[in-house]
Amino acid sequence: MSSTYGENLKLSIFGQSHGPAIGMTLDGIPAGLPVDFEKLQQFLNRRAPGQNDWSTPRKEEDCPEFLGGVLDGFTCGAPIAAVIYNKNTRSGDYDNLKNCPRPGHADYTAQIKYGGFQDAAGGGHFSGRLTAPLCIAGGLCKQWLEELGIRIGAHILEIHNVADDNFDFLNPQLDAIATDFPVLNQKRGEEMRLHIQDARKKGDSVGGLIQCAITGLPDGIGEPMFGGVESRISQILYGIPAVKALWFGSGIEASQMFGSQFNDDYQVIDGKVITATNHNGGILGGITTGMPVLFCAAIKPTPSISKPQQTVNLKTGENTTLEVQGRHDPCIVPRAVPVVEAAAAIAIYDMILGNTQTDRRK
Amino acid sequence: MSSTYGENLKLSIFGQSHGPAIGMTLDGIPAGLPVDFEKLQQFLNRRAPGQNDWSTPRKEEDCPEFLGGVLDGFTCGAPIAAVIYNKNTRSGDYDNLKNCPRPGHADYTAQIKYGGFQDAAGGGHFSGRLTAPLCIAGGLCKQWLEELGIRIGAHILEIHNVADDNFDFLNPQLDAIATDFPVLNQKRGEEMRLHIQDARKKGDSVGGLIQCAITGLPDGIGEPMFGGVESRISQILYGIPAVKALWFGSGIEASQMFGSQFNDDYQVIDGKVITATNHNGGILGGITTGMPVLFCAAIKPTPSISKPQQTVNLKTGENTTLEVQGRHDPCIVPRAVPVVEAAAAIAIYDMILGNTQTDRRK
Amino acid sequence: MSSTYGENLKLSIFGQSHGPAIGMTLDGIPAGLPVDFEKLQQFLNRRAPGQNDWSTPRKEEDCPEFLGGVLDGFTCGAPIAAVIYNKNTRSGDYDNLKNCPRPGHADYTAQIKYGGFQDAAGGGHFSGRLTAPLCIAGGLCKQWLEELGIRIGAHILEIHNVADDNFDFLNPQLDAIATDFPVLNQKRGEEMRLHIQDARKKGDSVGGLIQCAITGLPDGIGEPMFGGVESRISQILYGIPAVKALWFGSGIEASQMFGSQFNDDYQVIDGKVITATNHNGGILGGITTGMPVLFCAAIKPTPSISKPQQTVNLKTGENTTLEVQGRHDPCIVPRAVPVVEAAAAIAIYDMILGNTQTDRRK
Amino acid sequence: MSSTYGENLKLSIFGQSHGPAIGMTLDGIPAGLPVDFEKLQQFLNRRAPGQNDWSTPRKEEDCPEFLGGVLDGFTCGAPIAAVIYNKNTRSGDYDNLKNCPRPGHADYTAQIKYGGFQDAAGGGHFSGRLTAPLCIAGGLCKQWLEELGIRIGAHILEIHNVADDNFDFLNPQLDAIATDFPVLNQKRGEEMRLHIQDARKKGDSVGGLIQCAITGLPDGIGEPMFGGVESRISQILYGIPAVKALWFGSGIEASQMFGSQFNDDYQVIDGKVITATNHNGGILGGITTGMPVLFCAAIKPTPSISKPQQTVNLKTGENTTLEVQGRHDPCIVPRAVPVVEAAAAIAIYDMILGNTQTDRRK
Repeated sequence: MSSTYGENLKLSIFGQSHGPAIGMTLDGIPAGLPVDFEKLQQFLNRRAPGQNDWSTPRKEEDCPEFLGGVLDGFTCGAPIAAVIYNKNTRSGDYDNLKNCPRPGHADYTAQIKYGGFQDAAGGGHFSGRLTAPLCIAGGLCKQWLEELGIRIGAHILEIHNVADDNFDFLNPQLDAIATDFPVLNQKRGEEMRLHIQDARKKGDSVGGLIQCAITGLPDGIGEPMFGGVESRISQILYGIPAVKALWFGSGIEASQMFGSQFNDDYQVIDGKVITATNHNGGILGGITTGMPVLFCAAIKPTPSISKPQQTVNLKTGENTTLEVQGRHDPCIVPRAVPVVEAAAAIAIYDMILGNTQTDRRK
Repeated sequence: MSSTYGENLKLSIFGQSHGPAIGMTLDGIPAGLPVDFEKLQQFLNRRAPGQNDWSTPRKEEDCPEFLGGVLDGFTCGAPIAAVIYNKNTRSGDYDNLKNCPRPGHADYTAQIKYGGFQDAAGGGHFSGRLTAPLCIAGGLCKQWLEELGIRIGAHILEIHNVADDNFDFLNPQLDAIATDFPVLNQKRGEEMRLHIQDARKKGDSVGGLIQCAITGLPDGIGEPMFGGVESRISQILYGIPAVKALWFGSGIEASQMFGSQFNDDYQVIDGKVITATNHNGGILGGITTGMPVLFCAAIKPTPSISKPQQTVNLKTGENTTLEVQGRHDPCIVPRAVPVVEAAAAIAIYDMILGNTQTDRRK
Repeated sequence: MSSTYGENLKLSIFGQSHGPAIGMTLDGIPAGLPVDFEKLQQFLNRRAPGQNDWSTPRKEEDCPEFLGGVLDGFTCGAPIAAVIYNKNTRSGDYDNLKNCPRPGHADYTAQIKYGGFQDAAGGGHFSGRLTAPLCIAGGLCKQWLEELGIRIGAHILEIHNVADDNFDFLNPQLDAIATDFPVLNQKRGEEMRLHIQDARKKGDSVGGLIQCAITGLPDGIGEPMFGGVESRISQILYGIPAVKALWFGSGIEASQMFGSQFNDDYQVIDGKVITATNHNGGILGGITTGMPVLFCAAIKPTPSISKPQQTVNLKTGENTTLEVQGRHDPCIVPRAVPVVEAAAAIAIYDMILGNTQTDRRK
Repeated sequence: MSSTYGENLKLSIFGQSHGPAIGMTLDGIPAGLPVDFEKLQQFLNRRAPGQNDWSTPRKEEDCPEFLGGVLDGFTCGAPIAAVIYNKNTRSGDYDNLKNCPRPGHADYTAQIKYGGFQDAAGGGHFSGRLTAPLCIAGGLCKQWLEELGIRIGAHILEIHNVADDNFDFLNPQLDAIATDFPVLNQKRGEEMRLHIQDARKKGDSVGGLIQCAITGLPDGIGEPMFGGVESRISQILYGIPAVKALWFGSGIEASQMFGSQFNDDYQVIDGKVITATNHNGGILGGITTGMPVLFCAAIKPTPSISKPQQTVNLKTGENTTLEVQGRHDPCIVPRAVPVVEAAAAIAIYDMILGNTQTDRRK
């Protein structure tokens, strides 16, 4: 329910930020799929902190250990289980975190829901660190999708009012974004970095937008109503901390366009049916058209800032001022890019596994 | 999977636009909850077509017949089942719809997925008509939420660039929107209607935004990660045809604000912890804070337009021009308002039923 | 949760014994599968009451009306929905049923669980009548399995100490049991009928055993642990009222045999791997071996008997004597035979749909 | 789907017999529940091998390490994750196991399903060793049920034709069976042990029956149809390797009794409604009556025997003789007793968590 996802595959994520380990189990995966551990590690490194100048200087190594499900480089049909042991485990007194919730974090809602029993250290199970096991699962799904000719790639679309170019909706430039600060327009990327540095200096933070494209997806994937591609992707995407908006294709511009503009006309080119535009983001009635699937997610500014903030001491019931210690990402958007890709890969691979309709027909 | 929803309640929606009936089953509802049929009918009427000048002149009556689950005005613990019989059932030849898919509709993806076996008449199971049974389920959940002091209300936030005022995020004006064209700013509402009439005259259509607020929700509702309020609401919301974007609180402005602005500071007022702002839309870590939950959905322009459109004859493989016959809504947004409320009510009531955590604690 | 079943298909059953209708929705079924309505009706007739001398003289017609999901004799991909309208709907006062629960029925537990709000008339949602919609779903799945070469057949194995012959575990005699009193040994069948008549005369009832075989099932169907064939079949089988025991293969004799007897040795015959015996009932590790799947279900004696019984008046808290009025089946076993087949068909077809493992491999 | 279980709690079991570790995640558990690690270890020791003379001399230590979900001796609301590292991990060549499947094991079905990619060593994911993580989850649920006054206990009912006494169905003697060879009749227990020793000497194995009782369960637990107590228990019980039969109350004797005998009459004693007998095993219509819940499971003889067996070399397609090496349990029944308790505890606790019906009413 809470930290599990999937209709055909079953993903279960566990762990707390400062607990002994974080990890995941992934059940329902066919046997005989290859696992490229090196490629997976490269993918995980894109999310890991401390890799560059625009993220937190904390160094964490995200090296998964596989406890089951993979044998001699192939899936063996048993549930896949992998853990990342925490180097900096829990120590000290975290009562202050329980008493004086940090604005924008889940401290307050966790305290309400779990009545003080929650693991408050570093945000516990609500920590962004839990996106690491999500990236293990997603990194694997991404590999298996690539085997099927399906590619997933995302770039930073906007950081604090500085906008990158949009993907070409008919031919997303997936090869152009394979850098550690993935943007299409490098000059805008430079500007974004300056804004991030500026926020850091101010003890503040900034958010942004991420745009993701999925290419090579067969038509006919997804189910009607609540099993549509938008429904399946959105459920997992909103499981990423800090995601507060999501749209598909030109969805956000729905109120700016006439139907005659938004509708994607069909045409035959080289015997293949394609659409002349792709405002619907490759999805109609929840089902893929065969055109690239495109969506955008908005990431809120990192809640952890150095500036003093107003909060409440839940024990005394008095207003108080909080200064969050430690060094944090002034902008989580670049590290969230692979997480968005991972979430999309899991959702898509789940739908591919469940696509009995098209299997039967063939 | 496809047309079913829910973790604790189990909603299953069935029927095709021109089939014998559309309907729903709703399992997992406690016994002894009152059902106000008149109030439900009023709610359904808000969605029904042909009620006014800005929607389709087609007249449909959406009068549900209950086949099970309700006895003497109360739920009886058995699954609730209700159907709406179709007056205008299937007749004639719909092969043209299968051969020449209408742009923006699910005709093409249905043809791909179901290989010609789908019920193409009126869009079949993909028709907007299927939101009627969604409104039966949602109208019931809304009533039961009101018994718990939880209210849900939505208004038109924007139609074709004409924007209504935003809800007050701390005190959404739910009483102000109880009209058949729900807006906060009546003057803007007039403008919107003119734009709709204008689109109709042009044989075109327009889309818009809907903003929804949920008040009276206890804190601690929702689960971490994939079971969060955003995940649960988005999964069902994207099940509504034409929804292409969704955001929570000020989510869409994530890249316009600093963390120090976006973070909602806590304060104690009259012994109660509240936030000074509500940019997070009443949700932190997927769990309710006790502040109003707010979200917006973007509705794409109605795909059915009178203007000629380019499509493909799938049988001959040739490009062709299509003119959609019949009279359709130039703007579906006003009728989608209760549907958005219904979807939100189902998601929230599902989470309330599953809130064993808080139950145990008390 | 309660009246829903399935991992890949989604079955939802609704209705109360004396409500307006009973019915079912069946989601997740591929499009393009043929539906033979006449064959379905014949299957439903096997369950219907009043057909012969050993069941209740009440006459009910179980004629389903399809409200969705089937078009021109083929599934269309939309959820399948069918209802059977009740001729003898609710009337009169059923408070007595709520106050003085019938032993062996669910009257008492329904009263406890639903606090008096339940529909008590005729057992409400707990009535054996609810197996009719189960047979609609199961009759359809049975047809689709037959298209794949998979047959399901059951016979009465025992009624009140009179035992029929066992199926040949390697070649179950499915053709021999196609009668309205399905037994392998007709002489024993005659004896069984005499026992049933005898019980009727005494105002009492008898139970029995049903043995079911599934042939033509490919090897490799089912999942490990909780997704095994035994788990999936047992979950749905125990949803049939009156089933109180279930075993697979020679399972019940587990404590009578040595391992060297129970183990099914492998051998190659005509290039095909088969087992020399089939004590495991065609299932190892939850997964089919390719041998016939065999299981037995025990059906308790019909709780409705004419003899006076001791019960309690829940209103007054006093002991009292109850005489159940009306004419009832002295033995439900013959009518339960198609219900057992239906339940097995649903479980097996669900697993076939989800068998992505074998699909991928091929 | 496969190795996951639960409607309200979500259990996921992973690992292979000779892999790096076996373990489980358990999501959906409320925060603030106490965890007694010592008591859990004692429970796990009852299942562990090499503890006595009637089981395998292999020594394994089943010491779980908790990676998440428990903090300072209490659940913290995050998913609970625990692993047991394998001491004797995979080494050597297991191709022989793939080529020549052991009768009675899942070797053949795994080979078919996973096409040779499965982890064959020691039975891989199908090994009885996977019941250790099941016992971690079940041991925890058992503790939490005890906090609510609900006790679960099982005893050996039969081993190779030697039968123990039945539980008193109205007052199961849970205190009498707290020994390492749990029987009610110690003399019969001695006989059983002799039969086990005898089987060992012969290089053969024996199976048996286990009877389990659950006391203190409130009335009104369980849901109608497929969510009934029998359905929920049977789904998880059949996930235990070697379980081949299951019945509730006197279910197996259904065909030996008249309805007037099987029906449990109600009576009021000391103001409490109880039944005079308990043939229905505390369940009517899938819902608890408040009387003890009783069920029996049949465990097949251990498939691993020393005697030569006929099998097939899948590579060459020739018949061959197999002699299983190593020392194995001649009877798995005693060690399966806590596993049956664990499975029942998980099913019951899952239903308790989901019992929103009764919660609402109070």
